[in-house]
Amino acid sequence: MKSLRLHHYGEHPTIDEVAEPTITGPWDVIVDVGAAGLCRTDLHIIEGQWDPIQHPSLPYILGHENAGWVREVGSAVNNVKPGDTVIMHPLTSCGLCPACRIGQDSHCENATFPGLNTNGGMAQQLLTNARAVVRLEDGVQPRDVAALADAGLTAYHAVRKAADVLFPGTHAVVVGAGGLGHIGVQALAAITSATITVVDRSEEALGLAKSIGAHHTVLSTSDEDVEKRVLDITSGGAQVVFDFVGERGAELLAPRLLRNRGSHYVIGYGGAVNLPTIEIISREINVIGNLVGTYNDLVELMTLTAQGRVKLHTTVYPLDAANDAIADLEAGRLIGRGILVP
Amino acid sequence: MKSLRLHHYGEHPTIDEVAEPTITGPWDVIVDVGAAGLCRTDLHIIEGQWDPIQHPSLPYILGHENAGWVREVGSAVNNVKPGDTVIMHPLTSCGLCPACRIGQDSHCENATFPGLNTNGGMAQQLLTNARAVVRLEDGVQPRDVAALADAGLTAYHAVRKAADVLFPGTHAVVVGAGGLGHIGVQALAAITSATITVVDRSEEALGLAKSIGAHHTVLSTSDEDVEKRVLDITSGGAQVVFDFVGERGAELLAPRLLRNRGSHYVIGYGGAVNLPTIEIISREINVIGNLVGTYNDLVELMTLTAQGRVKLHTTVYPLDAANDAIADLEAGRLIGRGILVP
Amino acid sequence: MKSLRLHHYGEHPTIDEVAEPTITGPWDVIVDVGAAGLCRTDLHIIEGQWDPIQHPSLPYILGHENAGWVREVGSAVNNVKPGDTVIMHPLTSCGLCPACRIGQDSHCENATFPGLNTNGGMAQQLLTNARAVVRLEDGVQPRDVAALADAGLTAYHAVRKAADVLFPGTHAVVVGAGGLGHIGVQALAAITSATITVVDRSEEALGLAKSIGAHHTVLSTSDEDVEKRVLDITSGGAQVVFDFVGERGAELLAPRLLRNRGSHYVIGYGGAVNLPTIEIISREINVIGNLVGTYNDLVELMTLTAQGRVKLHTTVYPLDAANDAIADLEAGRLIGRGILVP
Amino acid sequence: MKSLRLHHYGEHPTIDEVAEPTITGPWDVIVDVGAAGLCRTDLHIIEGQWDPIQHPSLPYILGHENAGWVREVGSAVNNVKPGDTVIMHPLTSCGLCPACRIGQDSHCENATFPGLNTNGGMAQQLLTNARAVVRLEDGVQPRDVAALADAGLTAYHAVRKAADVLFPGTHAVVVGAGGLGHIGVQALAAITSATITVVDRSEEALGLAKSIGAHHTVLSTSDEDVEKRVLDITSGGAQVVFDFVGERGAELLAPRLLRNRGSHYVIGYGGAVNLPTIEIISREINVIGNLVGTYNDLVELMTLTAQGRVKLHTTVYPLDAANDAIADLEAGRLIGRGILVP
Repeated sequence: MKSLRLHHYGEHPTIDEVAEPTITGPWDVIVDVGAAGLCRTDLHIIEGQWDPIQHPSLPYILGHENAGWVREVGSAVNNVKPGDTVIMHPLTSCGLCPACRIGQDSHCENATFPGLNTNGGMAQQLLTNARAVVRLEDGVQPRDVAALADAGLTAYHAVRKAADVLFPGTHAVVVGAGGLGHIGVQALAAITSATITVVDRSEEALGLAKSIGAHHTVLSTSDEDVEKRVLDITSGGAQVVFDFVGERGAELLAPRLLRNRGSHYVIGYGGAVNLPTIEIISREINVIGNLVGTYNDLVELMTLTAQGRVKLHTTVYPLDAANDAIADLEAGRLIGRGILVP
Repeated sequence: MKSLRLHHYGEHPTIDEVAEPTITGPWDVIVDVGAAGLCRTDLHIIEGQWDPIQHPSLPYILGHENAGWVREVGSAVNNVKPGDTVIMHPLTSCGLCPACRIGQDSHCENATFPGLNTNGGMAQQLLTNARAVVRLEDGVQPRDVAALADAGLTAYHAVRKAADVLFPGTHAVVVGAGGLGHIGVQALAAITSATITVVDRSEEALGLAKSIGAHHTVLSTSDEDVEKRVLDITSGGAQVVFDFVGERGAELLAPRLLRNRGSHYVIGYGGAVNLPTIEIISREINVIGNLVGTYNDLVELMTLTAQGRVKLHTTVYPLDAANDAIADLEAGRLIGRGILVP
Repeated sequence: MKSLRLHHYGEHPTIDEVAEPTITGPWDVIVDVGAAGLCRTDLHIIEGQWDPIQHPSLPYILGHENAGWVREVGSAVNNVKPGDTVIMHPLTSCGLCPACRIGQDSHCENATFPGLNTNGGMAQQLLTNARAVVRLEDGVQPRDVAALADAGLTAYHAVRKAADVLFPGTHAVVVGAGGLGHIGVQALAAITSATITVVDRSEEALGLAKSIGAHHTVLSTSDEDVEKRVLDITSGGAQVVFDFVGERGAELLAPRLLRNRGSHYVIGYGGAVNLPTIEIISREINVIGNLVGTYNDLVELMTLTAQGRVKLHTTVYPLDAANDAIADLEAGRLIGRGILVP
Repeated sequence: MKSLRLHHYGEHPTIDEVAEPTITGPWDVIVDVGAAGLCRTDLHIIEGQWDPIQHPSLPYILGHENAGWVREVGSAVNNVKPGDTVIMHPLTSCGLCPACRIGQDSHCENATFPGLNTNGGMAQQLLTNARAVVRLEDGVQPRDVAALADAGLTAYHAVRKAADVLFPGTHAVVVGAGGLGHIGVQALAAITSATITVVDRSEEALGLAKSIGAHHTVLSTSDEDVEKRVLDITSGGAQVVFDFVGERGAELLAPRLLRNRGSHYVIGYGGAVNLPTIEIISREINVIGNLVGTYNDLVELMTLTAQGRVKLHTTVYPLDAANDAIADLEAGRLIGRGILVP
């Protein structure tokens, strides 16, 4: 089958013909890939940034945001059958470890992470398992949802964790309204009643944010200006700041946008949080890590999508043109999320 | 009346004769001070470290951990009466602002903080208010509980916030078993069922910790050694690390002692948390600020004290010898908490 | 001043001229009443149903849903000033008892409940206190919000308590879309992402429900039919059933509409819940009581109102025509909530 | 192999020789039974009370509280291996349904319940699955823990759900200190800091309760007397009443022992809760159902057992003497929990 494989860090992945996956375990599921999302994490993978965390054996197939149709299932699989439309949770969790027993799929001790530490979905077929597949209604197009499998899930997970404190009169600030951030804004509008303020460097991104649920937008010029405007809009700071950037200073600005007892939700990465302990305690503020999302988060996100409350803007490329898509993403020419269709 | 006042930052406070406080508002309460705790925060106050946060007008009376007997009450006070034994929540909260309406007394918008921004309890009398006083059973000695009003309350507050996740099989690590930490250990033993591991540089402190509820102790030598031993005891890291030090490297070590999804509770201060965002997200860990405690926390702590489940080790000085006590505290000669009795 | 007073249970209240209230305590607030809501509880009061619970001294002024403008304040009041537009939480809580310290205003041990156990707001002036007043933006009309003070607050409180479990894909069922229920539907739509199904005997009420956020409506014919339809819509039962009726069989039907681990929120009253313990345990279902709401609930509800997300349908009567309004309410002729304007 | 099978409701089960179970699915686990607990539910099963809920095919092997040693595992099992000492969660859950995905094993849509709807553990071998087995430390004796698998788990589950509100100064009341109740008392003492009051008709049971953690005991004479004494001890009612009886009037008495906002945890069954809705709302009280427990609850309970904080009193019978044990249980002659050893 056709696939996009990474052979060496720092080099372009290539379109390779490889053997189709086969069922070997009772919970295995093979999916005919309908679409695979391309995201900034793929660029980081190609650069080698994830090697020390996930250490895959090269070459391997990229693609960690996958949707398609079930092709074949192992002997113990009873939740999907061939022909079902499915989206894949990024991890193939085990269902037996302590994390799985409380629904914390992203922390499964025995999972594989296709596209990060084993073959992913930028190919004609993907090997996954019964615990990763979320069945979708017939008629849903994989290309319309694939990018929600990881990027969307990550944004939703953070919003979902914070939702308990985002009631009428509270303030949520979204820093960075790009691929993840604009899902975050839609999720906030759908499942919370907080007032939503979006900070971004792009007027276009802010315009989109306004149209999908943001109540206020702040063009990011200087940190001082952003801080002043956000504190003004929020009457002294937000209950929650969702930092979808996590680098280039956003991670240092975020705590300044909080009110007492507020929380800085870290989602983007690359920089470092640096906070004097006296500030942490005197304001009683928190820094909250967020990693992908749970299987249930993905089910909920698919429900919102089916209800039309979360929508993705995408640009579709054939799998053969993967390196064009990667070049467009690197150059900032890619509008919305890039989707590869095999 | 006799009082201990700070006149200039960086200089010793002095015993001054000052006018007694008077009732001017309907919720005012005047207390005959029975005991005032002396704590490391008093040293920081004298150094001027709290000036930019609390900006008191000098000279003023120190003492933010106070207990005694009600002397006189304002016209609207109906929860205590003259003669009642009381301990004081450190803040005189208003009962009307948003923080007060949800029981977050430490974040009251209109509070005074006696001993930090107005006259405190190192004197014969203290002016406080109806919302600050916790009535104690007759017979309780102010000198036995005064130091719980702030130091103990702060330790209890952090443990209480974390208690929801500290069930059988989980691990709580206490870094620093000094004045606050040894209350924290007792609180953990009383209200959680976690396995408690205590890290300290003093063998004596570890011995005390063992006798009041710690299941494991780790003598702090090198960070590498502490990390190795704690990860071994906790089978991969703690659910919660209570950092009662917050400086001198403890604030950097604490996150290394966490398992995935764990939380670093910052209680001590002086240093700075510095965490790469990729570590925060890939491990989904949190940093949680903790500030004093709520009025209800203090009520609960007094219940534990009455039940004999939390005990303080104290050294009592007459108020006239306050500067001896301060010198002993600075020199590390003060065993347990210092208590001033007017 | 003019007032509507109840002299004897079972008899019409009368328009009486009485003395104006006066400030006697430091937290007292006197309000020029702008509007007082009339509700079914007033009918129950007149019948004497609340006498054994609230035991007021007759005669007294009715009216427990009040809004207006501050006229005069006691010496310690600093959160409102004469001229401010305000809505009143139904209870004048103390701010000192255990319930108040955690924001559970409805369970204050020292509160009065104007209109139920002391003089209420169906008069030109109302005596309340600083902890009961919620300041509104200038320009808000008391007649547009008064009925939210109790009926709206009660509906919002129940929804707010349940909101933590009402995420995408969950089902909330509202039984009874009358005065309280139609606020409940709007609150559900505003602060949760559950699918909302409304059950009522009136096609008109269901039509209104559809227009304000209900996704499904079920005309109440037989219990069997309602159960069948609701279980079908909800794929096996709701996570939460909000029972705004609580009598005439609704309280017995509600548990049949739940899925395993679901909760029956009791808001209306008059009947009795009767559930075999084997059913409670084998389905692990819950029955949850709901009483009025907290001060913070009222603040949040006013925020939703200011945002246009919760609206009341009202019919306004002059205070002099109070008995006409009562007669209309009894006869089912009153459309929306009845409002008395002095 | 030897087994105890029920052939007809209302008749004694008989010792039958049956075929050994075999591995057919990848997650199957066969256990050499070390001990099977006998409990009042077995009596209800024999009477036919569970037939309409679980509808097993007769004859089948009884025994729903099982522990032993792994004998053989299916191809996909990686969490236990032959020889491991294990206790079994009562349900063989699927790991794929919505309930399993959030750790609510007792509500699995695809589970079997050995001993209730399929062959149980009163035999030499038991067929279970990988998701049901909790591995124990070597050396733990199955006979010492088997009865915790269901009875103990049920008691622990209820206490664990309530633990979030049982902090210092709160009151937990345990009604019925028998087989489940005395585990409940130990669990309350181990994981909460509430004051524990136990109500029972037996002075002996109360004596045991005192020795394992109860702070107060009340001999159950008349309901009026119990109510009076409990309200006195609890200063107006408990935050939580654990009703381990659920019949013979206990289910009607329990709500009378609650304070405002308190919760009646129903664990025992047989009777019916009957509460006027006006009482539910005016006191804002709750009725909470409790069903068995989660896998994680069982892991936590095993941790407490290993720590010596929860202990069972048992009487051991050989499997051949099962009908003697049943007769002793029916006649009230069985001290502690009955354990059958094959």
